[in-house]
Amino acid sequence: MNILVINCGSSSLKYQLIDMKEETVLAKGLVERIGIEGSRIKHDTTGKERVTIEEPMKDHKRALELVLNAILDKNYGAISSLDEIAAIGHRILHGGEDFVQPALITNEVIEAIRKNIVLAPLHNPAGLMGIEACRDLMPDTPMVVVFDTAFHQTMPAENYIYPIPYEYYEKYKIRRYGFHGTSHKYVSLRAAEILNKDIKNLNIVTCHLGNGSSIAAVKGGKCIDTSMGLTPLEGLPMGTRSGDIDPAIIPFIMDKEGITTSAEINDFLNKKSGVLGISGISSDFRDLEDAAEAGNERAKLALNIFCNGVRKYVAAYAAQMGSIDVLVFTAGIGENSSYVRERSCKGLECLGLIIDHELNDVRGKEAILSKNIVGPTIMVIPTNEELMIARDTLDIVNNR
Amino acid sequence: MNILVINCGSSSLKYQLIDMKEETVLAKGLVERIGIEGSRIKHDTTGKERVTIEEPMKDHKRALELVLNAILDKNYGAISSLDEIAAIGHRILHGGEDFVQPALITNEVIEAIRKNIVLAPLHNPAGLMGIEACRDLMPDTPMVVVFDTAFHQTMPAENYIYPIPYEYYEKYKIRRYGFHGTSHKYVSLRAAEILNKDIKNLNIVTCHLGNGSSIAAVKGGKCIDTSMGLTPLEGLPMGTRSGDIDPAIIPFIMDKEGITTSAEINDFLNKKSGVLGISGISSDFRDLEDAAEAGNERAKLALNIFCNGVRKYVAAYAAQMGSIDVLVFTAGIGENSSYVRERSCKGLECLGLIIDHELNDVRGKEAILSKNIVGPTIMVIPTNEELMIARDTLDIVNNR
Repeated sequence: MNILVINCGSSSLKYQLIDMKEETVLAKGLVERIGIEGSRIKHDTTGKERVTIEEPMKDHKRALELVLNAILDKNYGAISSLDEIAAIGHRILHGGEDFVQPALITNEVIEAIRKNIVLAPLHNPAGLMGIEACRDLMPDTPMVVVFDTAFHQTMPAENYIYPIPYEYYEKYKIRRYGFHGTSHKYVSLRAAEILNKDIKNLNIVTCHLGNGSSIAAVKGGKCIDTSMGLTPLEGLPMGTRSGDIDPAIIPFIMDKEGITTSAEINDFLNKKSGVLGISGISSDFRDLEDAAEAGNERAKLALNIFCNGVRKYVAAYAAQMGSIDVLVFTAGIGENSSYVRERSCKGLECLGLIIDHELNDVRGKEAILSKNIVGPTIMVIPTNEELMIARDTLDIVNNR
Repeated sequence: MNILVINCGSSSLKYQLIDMKEETVLAKGLVERIGIEGSRIKHDTTGKERVTIEEPMKDHKRALELVLNAILDKNYGAISSLDEIAAIGHRILHGGEDFVQPALITNEVIEAIRKNIVLAPLHNPAGLMGIEACRDLMPDTPMVVVFDTAFHQTMPAENYIYPIPYEYYEKYKIRRYGFHGTSHKYVSLRAAEILNKDIKNLNIVTCHLGNGSSIAAVKGGKCIDTSMGLTPLEGLPMGTRSGDIDPAIIPFIMDKEGITTSAEINDFLNKKSGVLGISGISSDFRDLEDAAEAGNERAKLALNIFCNGVRKYVAAYAAQMGSIDVLVFTAGIGENSSYVRERSCKGLECLGLIIDHELNDVRGKEAILSKNIVGPTIMVIPTNEELMIARDTLDIVNNR
């Protein structure tokens, strides 16, 4: 049984076709520049050479049409008929408070996604375009939507209500939502699986550290707190996003710089801050590690500020859960940067978290980084959001 | 040797006259409504009845004149000549990066306080008025200034630089400063004294929980991190201040509510948020505890959000220091609310912090709340900022 996983941006479309029997990827690819000159698909079928398809694509429907052609192609395709796609799983950023879990796509579900556009004005419309395109081209294939926010909907009110006038929650639904939910869910389940323990008995802190970074407290398989908030700006400093700051900095800078619009504020907080803002060099942690090694003080400062953030959230979430059994690092930085992992763990010995310098010398694969037999385990688990979406899709379709 | 301690607000003046031999308060009082109709002094000399002096006071100089008269008064005064005041200690909110410790007041020091008005536009001018009044009335008495920010100036850059464009630090000195420094210093020193240990060997987390709340990580007697930032808005939710929120909430609300000015933003973040914003009832924790006990869900929510904040900062700062030896609660809520203390400590057992339910039944006096012999100690220590200022003043004057 094959599941097609779709993740649409405003001018992009990522896809994976997964055979669920062995959970293997049959084909995957990326469409870029949809609706812009120079549209192209980079398509990979497992075991075959990559092909690049360059052709005008005026919208997501045309892009999907060409993706399906690629998947079916006799030379570089993976399957021979669309009937071999049992279901489609769509990633959607924001489910607001309407979705606690993935959902089979119906007209009501589409309406609810539309309703939440206000909370994700750039992302949800793109996701809807992908859903519409699939409905047009494969009207009889069941579709499921998996939200980046849904895993965090188990948080109690005391961890999602902000200390601002309560009416802003009632009127505008301003609250903590959290993001990267599919990733936090995948790695926490996988951690329990690797350790051969029931997730119900585990307190896990999951660190999704990439260009966007978030940390979650997963107690007994359920998220009880997470560092991203109303938007993916809150929490850790990121590539170009500020993360947590004194909120009073915003009006202070407005006065100093003559800023008056929300767009200007969002611009400097989202695009000019984070480790790029501190270092003045790059938003890419590999560049920062190289620069720091070469003696650049502000690159070093940026890395250390990031690691201090990770350390503080891990400790805070251990306390939120009462204890910690597993600490997981995932995503681009979490899977690959031994520096960030080791520096972040410095100080966490007081919680029994002891990273082993040699075991930590690992990149991009599942590994255990702690040697201790008793006490918590530190792990690297490469994330796999597409597989999680495919599993959730299969689950919903099978239980219709 | 007597020290007069002065703390000026824009229309108020608090004072204490302290005999430093036994560190006893000879007299203290509060002037309210300076420059406004209805000016009055509430004056207490130890061992005598309180007097209220109602008289027009057009400025801080006139107020101080009447305060000195009260202190010298034959019936309700405490001393017989101004010569008995050896020195004056002034509390000033913001020393910026210019003051790492208290300073003897000179023209240069006054200039530096003036320079930092940009960082404390409401508070520093009031402090300067108090200094000017004392200079006019007691020109030969040495004066010392003690800054609310100075104790935190030992923080390393990785804990005070924000993840925003670095130029904002260079151009406007936007960084973490921290406040309540005199209180954090006093209770951390006092904790070491009570435990009969050298503060150099202690990792202490101090929780100043009052109408304004902040937490500090004090390692070997030096602050390495604290929850308030550029302004006293950051960190824990407070009576009416938001504390930490997703910074993107500000532009989001600007759009929804048609807010365009920094003044409007500062207004809702500083005056309508915090536990008042959540509960819709009160900024006073006693009111909230009563309401929560009577079944009010939002009062309970506000209290729990506050306690979660305390718990998370304590754990984060323990990790920042690598371990924790002492946890201190102080200020209005920290000294008096057994509910807040116990709820905040829930989950901190993973750091060895075990609060004893019965020992915790204490209000407004020094007490140890943990029973364990090994591992960290939890304490209540009533703060005494005036005494700390007087000690610092004496120290500076003696070592001129």
